[in-house]
Amino acid sequence: MAERGNGEVVRLGGTSGVDQTSVRRANLARVLDEVRRGEVVSRADIATRSGLTKATVSSLAAELIDRGLIRETGLRRDGAVGRPGRALELDGGGITALGLEINSQYLAARGTDLAGRVIVERRLGFDAIHADPEVTLDRLAGLARDAVAELAGSASSYLAGIAVAVPGLVDAETGRVRYAPNLEWRSTPIAEALRERLGSDVPIVVDNEANLSALAELHAMPNPAADLVYLTGEVGVGAGLITGGRLLRGSGGFTGEIGHIPVDLDGQTCGCGRRGCLETKIGLPAVLRAAAPDLAADREADPQDQAHALRQRAEDGGPEAMAGFDEIGRWLGIGVSMLVNLLNPEVVVLGGYLGTVAPYLVPAAMRELRERAVAGDAAVCRITASTFGFSAAVRGASSIVIEEIFSDPLRIPAAEKAAE
Amino acid sequence: MAERGNGEVVRLGGTSGVDQTSVRRANLARVLDEVRRGEVVSRADIATRSGLTKATVSSLAAELIDRGLIRETGLRRDGAVGRPGRALELDGGGITALGLEINSQYLAARGTDLAGRVIVERRLGFDAIHADPEVTLDRLAGLARDAVAELAGSASSYLAGIAVAVPGLVDAETGRVRYAPNLEWRSTPIAEALRERLGSDVPIVVDNEANLSALAELHAMPNPAADLVYLTGEVGVGAGLITGGRLLRGSGGFTGEIGHIPVDLDGQTCGCGRRGCLETKIGLPAVLRAAAPDLAADREADPQDQAHALRQRAEDGGPEAMAGFDEIGRWLGIGVSMLVNLLNPEVVVLGGYLGTVAPYLVPAAMRELRERAVAGDAAVCRITASTFGFSAAVRGASSIVIEEIFSDPLRIPAAEKAAE
Repeated sequence: MAERGNGEVVRLGGTSGVDQTSVRRANLARVLDEVRRGEVVSRADIATRSGLTKATVSSLAAELIDRGLIRETGLRRDGAVGRPGRALELDGGGITALGLEINSQYLAARGTDLAGRVIVERRLGFDAIHADPEVTLDRLAGLARDAVAELAGSASSYLAGIAVAVPGLVDAETGRVRYAPNLEWRSTPIAEALRERLGSDVPIVVDNEANLSALAELHAMPNPAADLVYLTGEVGVGAGLITGGRLLRGSGGFTGEIGHIPVDLDGQTCGCGRRGCLETKIGLPAVLRAAAPDLAADREADPQDQAHALRQRAEDGGPEAMAGFDEIGRWLGIGVSMLVNLLNPEVVVLGGYLGTVAPYLVPAAMRELRERAVAGDAAVCRITASTFGFSAAVRGASSIVIEEIFSDPLRIPAAEKAAE
Repeated sequence: MAERGNGEVVRLGGTSGVDQTSVRRANLARVLDEVRRGEVVSRADIATRSGLTKATVSSLAAELIDRGLIRETGLRRDGAVGRPGRALELDGGGITALGLEINSQYLAARGTDLAGRVIVERRLGFDAIHADPEVTLDRLAGLARDAVAELAGSASSYLAGIAVAVPGLVDAETGRVRYAPNLEWRSTPIAEALRERLGSDVPIVVDNEANLSALAELHAMPNPAADLVYLTGEVGVGAGLITGGRLLRGSGGFTGEIGHIPVDLDGQTCGCGRRGCLETKIGLPAVLRAAAPDLAADREADPQDQAHALRQRAEDGGPEAMAGFDEIGRWLGIGVSMLVNLLNPEVVVLGGYLGTVAPYLVPAAMRELRERAVAGDAAVCRITASTFGFSAAVRGASSIVIEEIFSDPLRIPAAEKAAE
């Protein structure tokens, strides 16, 4: 293979030893990314944009075609040169990803192809708070099995992975939920339990729902923010943090735990045992008690239904409701100010019910933020409602499987292997 | 140049166009880094570890030698092969970096060579709170000029850059201090002012002192933590945040502003106008008032002297002092818990006076942290005293100039250009 003039090669990744696979992997990822961005590009385009030689691009493209990730499509003219070159586009019709979500009042599944096109989407009302975890996992596995069957529609489809969003602290390495306070789960091995029930060795990752929601919002932005905070409110309050364009997981995967930071030392005792937690001010139960007490009574209601009922109250606009929302907006602003002062994000995105009633909370929250941002106007950022609301977490779940493929195309087996 | 089998080239950095300079720069950085890590390595060693061909390594090494960054030294045997290969080591004796610091009660300078060996170190007591900013900048420029003269000891030395640590919010792009509350500086163009006074076009960067201190601590760790928080207390309280091994700067460079987050809504009014700020509990003036009121009176004392006097009080161990420290340790723990819950660092490093009296604060702080860490023991991290105390910021400043060289060796001119 001919190379560019000085024939330089750069080794990526680790620092020990020669790793040709790492270089190949990175190059495959690069070409795949160019095809994704460009929608329809020729090998020559990719060579120009990436700095790889045409010969190298051809080799990499052949491998990606073999793995079903891209395909050739028709002919197109090659830029200004006038010679037609075959165009490449994302294939991935045979490659699927499954996102799952365990929420306090529902289970969800969302299966897509490589391009993110939704093939199956399911939501099952289920009280995970009162059910035995084993029963919840049985139901989740059932939902997953049905979704997998729909994804396997065509004989050649390959399920690249499953990701599960949970409302709790997750040990990413083992796929174990360390603690999900609202479900009262401790040390629950989700990945293992699912693998057993599905009888499959498909890769399964588990992550905190605020983290996955933050990723979903990030990917939905036309100009992705490098620094974004996703603040979600349902039963619990938590944050997913994007810094420098990447999810901030921290030393153990336990970032964004803002729900139990005290904002009022003389405040109420929280379910967690501490006093004056942010969750006692802006968690959904507290909000319902303040702004719509009659709705608060139903402890088994779906949070999304409760959020919509709350929104209806706001729209009806009674003075008690309005005062309630303003007060909640104020405490939201205190919480957001903490995040802004520490992390200086470009935007704060509100999810869960906070997103549903955002228009009624954001004015008061912005007033607090303007007073509390230490760096002044330069740090005062927008507070917006989530694009996806209650489906952000499961979207983030399916999309994290897709992103793993784009980072490492070698995860998808070559044609001879894919037929199992 | 012969290349490895498949002759792959990967283009780094941006996404548009071919950028041979970027590849060359990255390769130079890689070789320089191998030399730094290895202390004494041969070209063959570097080729093995980096995946670059020996021919490429020779070319890169020649360029680094030409720029005075590395040099050959004696002979050594080449691994198991038995053929001796000339070893390479860091040179950089002719390359210097200058760190400066503006503190409320002193100005500091620290000049090193490429390997970080200190050539000049100065500290000038100076009341920057009450002086006119222009006077402060005159004095700083004078200190810098003297330091530069000492660094220029040998005729061939090249000052690669100057970095200035300031106790405030910095606009990194312009080198302007947006706001330094303790100095009462607003919109002060430090980089520009220094450039004028020094009459030089040496690159000057300005950064927040907590940020630079965090970098200094990170580089001092034998096994650098990917996620670290540096919490500094002098007049002001602020944090430098390392996440995923890098400084977290956020959208505008205004991260870590923890000093004015309220921890006690019924607390005292802070100098900033807000109420119950963390600084009103653990800022040095508040601490002196609580634990050593007679020391609090001297508003022009050097914070380092005050910190040592405070330490002496702690060591003398009177009951009033002990109760005072325990109370401060508790509020410190509340602040640290906020950082731990949001960022999940591996370690929290205490700087400024907090580091000086750390042994008397950390027990109470750890008690709070154990109760408040939402993820429990898994998130409870160590709280340690800064290795460098009050010199962390100026160390971070000189080291950030050095790190810039390692990232981009092309900043150092080739031999024909260096002789100005």
